[in-house]
Amino acid sequence: MNEQYQSRLTALANYLYTLDVDLAIIKEPKNVFYYTGFYSDPHERFMALVIDLKKQSQYLFVPSLDLEIAEGVSYVKRIVPISDEVNPYKVLKDTIGAEIKTIGLETKVISLFQQEQLHNSFQNFSYLNIGDFISAQRMRKTQEECNKVQKAIYVIEKVMDEGIKKVKEGMTEQELTAELEYLMRKFGAEGPAFSSIILSGAKSALPHGRPDSKTINRGDFLLIDMGVIADGYCSDITRTFIMGEETAKQREIYDVVRKATQAGVEAARAGIPIRQIDIAARKVIKEAGYGQYFNNRVGHGLGIDVHEEPSVHGNNDLIVERGILFTVEPGIYIPGYGGVRIEENVYIDEDGHGKLLTSFPTELMRIG
Amino acid sequence: MNEQYQSRLTALANYLYTLDVDLAIIKEPKNVFYYTGFYSDPHERFMALVIDLKKQSQYLFVPSLDLEIAEGVSYVKRIVPISDEVNPYKVLKDTIGAEIKTIGLETKVISLFQQEQLHNSFQNFSYLNIGDFISAQRMRKTQEECNKVQKAIYVIEKVMDEGIKKVKEGMTEQELTAELEYLMRKFGAEGPAFSSIILSGAKSALPHGRPDSKTINRGDFLLIDMGVIADGYCSDITRTFIMGEETAKQREIYDVVRKATQAGVEAARAGIPIRQIDIAARKVIKEAGYGQYFNNRVGHGLGIDVHEEPSVHGNNDLIVERGILFTVEPGIYIPGYGGVRIEENVYIDEDGHGKLLTSFPTELMRIG
Repeated sequence: MNEQYQSRLTALANYLYTLDVDLAIIKEPKNVFYYTGFYSDPHERFMALVIDLKKQSQYLFVPSLDLEIAEGVSYVKRIVPISDEVNPYKVLKDTIGAEIKTIGLETKVISLFQQEQLHNSFQNFSYLNIGDFISAQRMRKTQEECNKVQKAIYVIEKVMDEGIKKVKEGMTEQELTAELEYLMRKFGAEGPAFSSIILSGAKSALPHGRPDSKTINRGDFLLIDMGVIADGYCSDITRTFIMGEETAKQREIYDVVRKATQAGVEAARAGIPIRQIDIAARKVIKEAGYGQYFNNRVGHGLGIDVHEEPSVHGNNDLIVERGILFTVEPGIYIPGYGGVRIEENVYIDEDGHGKLLTSFPTELMRIG
Repeated sequence: MNEQYQSRLTALANYLYTLDVDLAIIKEPKNVFYYTGFYSDPHERFMALVIDLKKQSQYLFVPSLDLEIAEGVSYVKRIVPISDEVNPYKVLKDTIGAEIKTIGLETKVISLFQQEQLHNSFQNFSYLNIGDFISAQRMRKTQEECNKVQKAIYVIEKVMDEGIKKVKEGMTEQELTAELEYLMRKFGAEGPAFSSIILSGAKSALPHGRPDSKTINRGDFLLIDMGVIADGYCSDITRTFIMGEETAKQREIYDVVRKATQAGVEAARAGIPIRQIDIAARKVIKEAGYGQYFNNRVGHGLGIDVHEEPSVHGNNDLIVERGILFTVEPGIYIPGYGGVRIEENVYIDEDGHGKLLTSFPTELMRIG
């Protein structure tokens, strides 16, 4: 395991040398995990992996209360605990000591407040963005990382399989969510990867709606969008079911979305601009006359974060590479009527082929 | 309901006029919720409440896929949807139009990247921090807000009560977590307020440890730190139980922590520096000879966020005011041995008294 963190950190350090920065501060907890194996959500407390390029030293700054865990798992062994009463930027300055002219920062993560604090400690430094390099590094996943996502998919598909057996007419979305999240833990997940989206009837037209006390009724679409974190990696899958029997219109909408998802998955391979995946899926929906009811991107990268690079949308010219892993999740959302989404997870393998990681059936299933 | 959002927004606008800013951009989703009633986690998408002080207009920018929900609940009715393919900062500029010299920003929330994007749209603006005002506004809670936290406490105490009946020797921490989180949903919560901390035996010494496949065994301390979100507000409570029968040392540690929590709660009242609450609780632990085993602050504010202002630590000179609501949660954590934490939630009421909101018993309970 440690070799993997070492090689990631070496790749980052090599990049930092080309940038000619004196110091790099990595604050995003998921990035800290990626390079050290240590994960914690520090909330408002200070936590950072700091690389001193001059001294060729690495430090992990953690809240004092996380010290014991960090010592147990972190690949980086110089660990500096910070207690709640001290100014962490002063501790940082005291630890690093030397004069610093240029700092590499994740500019999407570092706040203006943190920048001000850094200026108090290191006076007139300039900064360079290292976040894009880190995102690109995380975007290219090894087979081992893909296997971890696959494991998280395996768990969530088991949850889906067992969970839909528990659906009964008249149960609330919230009750079903409770059952599903119980199964996540039962089948070994650390927890949900995001706030589970369990929506029925007209509510299924809300791409980011929340489960509530609405009952699941006969004739409703039942949309289940959920994922788990297992071993630090996420899955994210959506299936839409029909309660009882579908109408002709529901069947039509469902089949269009199903074809759109298939078209997106089939378009995925190394060498093409990633927008073609969005375009391929969207084309099916447009041609069926439902274009106005699909207004978001077709997918997003998936890994340590449930949303990461790449963004799979119609204006992204990124060339698809080996190692990227993402969702394909077109949908049709008709306000006041209901919606359908079918979401798969795809990995671009060693051979440059799009490998479908999800295996839960996509045929319309009648349940309840 | 709408009056409440209106009065909050009016108070903010009045403050902004004194700052002489042209524009205010509120990005933190919980702050957007506080002023509009609309909550969404936009992940990496752009979402903001924008106040144009010149035109006296307010806008809510939301991801397109959240438009329908936002229209249904937001107090601010000028809603601008942003689709995934466009540059949100261009949409912002096109919507606002006018030349902007000064922008009010939450400096703990706005990233360097976002600042750069704003500079692309609005060229040479300067910024002022409005985040501290917002945090202070949120910190002072009305009785109505306190009632919402109280409701979230009511749910979590019911979960605690039912949940401990399910504890059996040999069950894993993860299995118990599944049961507890199931009960949260069942009793009406939107979900856990944070990653539940269910730890047993030596692991209970990790203030931020995570439940895993460790089994809960006879003689273990069982530490349960959990909370729920209900109606947008959080609870956060900890109790530590003993599996079977305690040793004399376990009993001693437990009683010290219990007295420390009581001392912290009893110290809480309007007019004193908040550090005195930390000091009062810590004194009990120090005097019992366990000072080295309690290394974090005694508590934190609680409300829409599970961690918010004020921070209850020994160097905070903030004067305790009516309306603040916070946790008191001292602990003793002995590495390799185990730990005890007892966490209460306290509100400073109209009369300036510290009102204990939690009611779950704190006597050592033998379970399993």
